[in-house]
Amino acid sequence: MDSSKSTGETAINIPAESNSTKHKTAAAAAYTATTKAVPHPQAGWKRGVSIFDFILRICALVAALAATATMGTTDQTLPFFTQFFQFQASYDDLPTFTFFVVANAIASGYLVLSMPFSIVAIVRPHAAGVRLLLLILDTVVMAFTTAAAAAAAAIVYLAHNGNANTNWFAICQQFNDFCQRVSGAVVASFIAAVIFIFLVLLSAVALRRH
Amino acid sequence: MDSSKSTGETAINIPAESNSTKHKTAAAAAYTATTKAVPHPQAGWKRGVSIFDFILRICALVAALAATATMGTTDQTLPFFTQFFQFQASYDDLPTFTFFVVANAIASGYLVLSMPFSIVAIVRPHAAGVRLLLLILDTVVMAFTTAAAAAAAAIVYLAHNGNANTNWFAICQQFNDFCQRVSGAVVASFIAAVIFIFLVLLSAVALRRH
Repeated sequence: MDSSKSTGETAINIPAESNSTKHKTAAAAAYTATTKAVPHPQAGWKRGVSIFDFILRICALVAALAATATMGTTDQTLPFFTQFFQFQASYDDLPTFTFFVVANAIASGYLVLSMPFSIVAIVRPHAAGVRLLLLILDTVVMAFTTAAAAAAAAIVYLAHNGNANTNWFAICQQFNDFCQRVSGAVVASFIAAVIFIFLVLLSAVALRRH
Repeated sequence: MDSSKSTGETAINIPAESNSTKHKTAAAAAYTATTKAVPHPQAGWKRGVSIFDFILRICALVAALAATATMGTTDQTLPFFTQFFQFQASYDDLPTFTFFVVANAIASGYLVLSMPFSIVAIVRPHAAGVRLLLLILDTVVMAFTTAAAAAAAAIVYLAHNGNANTNWFAICQQFNDFCQRVSGAVVASFIAAVIFIFLVLLSAVALRRH
């Protein structure tokens, strides 16, 4: 502005341009301000989602571990026996229960391994790749857990009620303790499956706001 | 410009401003151009994902309908009978198979209802809300289908092999045709469940690139 003080024409002309440049710079600053200001509350929101995700993962781990441990340690021996038989029921008498234990153990292991990634998502709320990876693996492990829980539930239902049409008798009159523990394990596994569904939905919502 | 022809000062002043305005407009046009040019290949990519989503939905519908129809119409009457009994097997003899039919029918109905939303996603590739809705509902219906398929698979396994520990005998020696049809229905349902997993993953990837 000091150099333009000499002539009247340029004196008016240059300030006009420098003014418009200032305007532009101000506008650019405003643009920068908005692009920097908008994601800031979003980052907080995303961090909250990630922390909730981590807490849900701990809950799912507890449920899956409880299901594995309950089913894996179930073993009932009846207090009477014949010359050839001792009546005993354990989870590996039924292949479905073996699958149940394996699937829930896999789910527990996966949950432990996924926790570092969940922490990365807390530290870097905008890392969409980590979220997508977790969502894909969560979906697959969720399908596994649901399948194991449903298959075990079908067998437990049969053990409780039997089926007259196929001559399959209820075994829970004899193995009452066994049946109760197995039912508990199935319920725990279903809880883990429901938490997995919430984890998938949470990741999807967080990805959407990307 | 016509009104500013009288004095020199304003004559120079106004073109200077209008020039900078032109500059601004050009800059604004450039901005508009970039914001319009960048998502264009993405829109095509997203449309491709949506079309693939629609095709997968049709495949899943075929699989789920096949599972429902096969299980629902399975009915075998053995060619011999006693005074009181005619040996007959149909899907509603076992509660698990009833659940299977209901869950697969729900999945089929959902797939039909979701197709208009899938078409909306094809027409408007940037509608993230539709994708999120489909992802959430897909996840829930996927869990249902997987549970039904797994529970039925556990029972079919029992029907084929029996279980010596619990004195549940295999019934497939007698009801051979019944067992074959039921196994086919279970396989179809598992195919539907796997397609659902792909649908969820596809929606997640499409949401990520939003």
